[in-house]
Amino acid sequence: MGTQPSEQKRRSVVLLSGGLDSATTLAIARASGFACYCLSVDYGQRHHSELRAAAVVAQTLAASGHRVLRLRLEDFGGSALTDASVALPVDGVRPGIPVTYVPARNTVMLSLALAWAEVLGSQDIFIGVNAVDYSGYPDCRPEYISAFEKMANLATKAAVEGAALRIHAPLIHLSKAEIIRHGIDLGLDYGLTVSCYQADAAGRACGVCDSCRLRRAGFAAAGVVDPTPYARATAGKFADE
Amino acid sequence: MGTQPSEQKRRSVVLLSGGLDSATTLAIARASGFACYCLSVDYGQRHHSELRAAAVVAQTLAASGHRVLRLRLEDFGGSALTDASVALPVDGVRPGIPVTYVPARNTVMLSLALAWAEVLGSQDIFIGVNAVDYSGYPDCRPEYISAFEKMANLATKAAVEGAALRIHAPLIHLSKAEIIRHGIDLGLDYGLTVSCYQADAAGRACGVCDSCRLRRAGFAAAGVVDPTPYARATAGKFADE
Repeated sequence: MGTQPSEQKRRSVVLLSGGLDSATTLAIARASGFACYCLSVDYGQRHHSELRAAAVVAQTLAASGHRVLRLRLEDFGGSALTDASVALPVDGVRPGIPVTYVPARNTVMLSLALAWAEVLGSQDIFIGVNAVDYSGYPDCRPEYISAFEKMANLATKAAVEGAALRIHAPLIHLSKAEIIRHGIDLGLDYGLTVSCYQADAAGRACGVCDSCRLRRAGFAAAGVVDPTPYARATAGKFADE
Repeated sequence: MGTQPSEQKRRSVVLLSGGLDSATTLAIARASGFACYCLSVDYGQRHHSELRAAAVVAQTLAASGHRVLRLRLEDFGGSALTDASVALPVDGVRPGIPVTYVPARNTVMLSLALAWAEVLGSQDIFIGVNAVDYSGYPDCRPEYISAFEKMANLATKAAVEGAALRIHAPLIHLSKAEIIRHGIDLGLDYGLTVSCYQADAAGRACGVCDSCRLRRAGFAAAGVVDPTPYARATAGKFADE
């Protein structure tokens, strides 16, 4: 991390959901020497405890700031994550775009990060999207990130005045196991993170939603003990194994 | 408007601020045969009465729906429109990007419209940006709109599945006078709209902020009587004229 004082570091905005990927992204941004301003969005997600995890992760990783914006995406509906009447799949990850897809979520998140970055005088936004062991979301692909960056560089006063903005997606080509190994090398405690789509109020994971399955498989593939607190079973003791 | 029943019309999302440009855009979308779902964003703007104007305009133009999303952009600050401690310029429109610029505002608005459009099954978003008699905002330029459209077509499940999304900016190449004449041809009552950056609670305009100046000049150039209710003076009787 070096000894450079915080006020001399370049500022970055890090989108922080409180899950495994975004926490790793924050650790990477920090290790790259950025002062990190973390942005979480309370968009009506059913796994509200990830926001508490985000606050703990931001504090533990000595973020320069953390803001939680409330945005009522549940008023639009259209996703199992924001509409309690849509059942959450718990019987295994299927091909294609799942019902947990939240319409335009990353576009909305990146837009908010762009707004804050401009006010902070930051030219660097970090997002933990991943196109390998991912959930089939279109807004996690490299070509999408690249198109957003291009648009952002036409959108702002800062960009017009010559301050090129960069969207960093350091996990985009990594497998879940590689992400986990990378985070552990950086000293990250994944026990602080919440990935589960239906984590309970204490942050305990179900172990069977798509997000839990991808995470569990990641720890297994990385050969790392899974530190996730599970509500219904202990790690590695699920009915389907 | 034709006699096509509302449920058979193509759906569009129309960004509606309550000002002159977005009201004209709604009138155009409606005249083009779209069922219009209007989206307004309460982003902490000081001219809060434009949101009341938006509701009246949406109802008067028989919108299929109108939603006002609260988003605390004032938590980010960085604009005279969302930060009461930044003085609003009232002494004439200057070259360059003014302090009323709201960081990434149109990117945030279009992203929210994109989210709602996907849920509604709409492939058409209307925005009243204008690159002629405009306020110097970078996110009002044609190249920006085009880059957003390109990004949006990589962002969503709908686009990935083949439903190309289009961003309509029907005013982009029109002068303010042309916009006004177009709206009047469509029967729009501009007395319902609020453009002023510091309109009072009753929606009365100051007449001297940049937005008022551009609007007043537009009515003058169009040769149309300005129906704006002014708080400090009557139309055409300002100290600088």
